[in-house]
Amino acid sequence: MIRHVVLLKWNEGVAAAHITATKAALDRLPGLIPQIVSYQNGPDLHVAPTNYDYAVTAEFESADDFIVYRDHPAHQEVVQSYLAPHSQRFAVQFSVD
Amino acid sequence: MIRHVVLLKWNEGVAAAHITATKAALDRLPGLIPQIVSYQNGPDLHVAPTNYDYAVTAEFESADDFIVYRDHPAHQEVVQSYLAPHSQRFAVQFSVD
Repeated sequence: MIRHVVLLKWNEGVAAAHITATKAALDRLPGLIPQIVSYQNGPDLHVAPTNYDYAVTAEFESADDFIVYRDHPAHQEVVQSYLAPHSQRFAVQFSVD
Repeated sequence: MIRHVVLLKWNEGVAAAHITATKAALDRLPGLIPQIVSYQNGPDLHVAPTNYDYAVTAEFESADDFIVYRDHPAHQEVVQSYLAPHSQRFAVQFSVD
C-alpha cells in the first residue's frame, strides 16, 4: 500500500469559510474516485506550536492507483479551486504494510 | 482520534545510511511508547515530482496521548539524534473518526 500525505499552509487572508468548504470538497472525493482506499483530512488542532495548517492523508493499493487519483478530474477540480491558488503545499508518498 | 503527520526534508549531504538508521529508530518507538495507536514512516517513493523527502504518520486516542509521545524520552532521543539537526520539519495534528 501507498500512503499519500499532504500538508498545506494557507495563504494570508484565507477565510475560515474557505477552509470549511475545502474540507467538504475533499470529503466528497472518496465517493467519486474508487481507487481511494482510505481518506482523512482536516485542520491543525493547535495542540503543538510551529505547525502547518491542514493535512490530507490517503491510502492506495499501488502507485498507479495514486496517479489515477492525482489526475482524476474531481481531484484536480478541488486542487485548482480550493488548494493551489490559496496555499503552499508539501507532499510525500511512502510505503506502508 | 488524533492523526499526527510529519514531513521532513533532509539537509544537503544527509547520507542514505542516516535515513536507514532513522527508519529503524522510528520503527522502535511503538514498542516503547504505549500511547501510540498506529505508526508508519518511510522515505518518499518518487512517484510524483516536487515532493518532500520523508513522512511519519501516527495515531493517538487524544491530544494528551500525543503530548506524552512528543515529550517521551525515547521520542526526544530520535528527534535530537536523527531528525532536528539533519532536516527541516513540518507537522500537523488533525482529528480523524
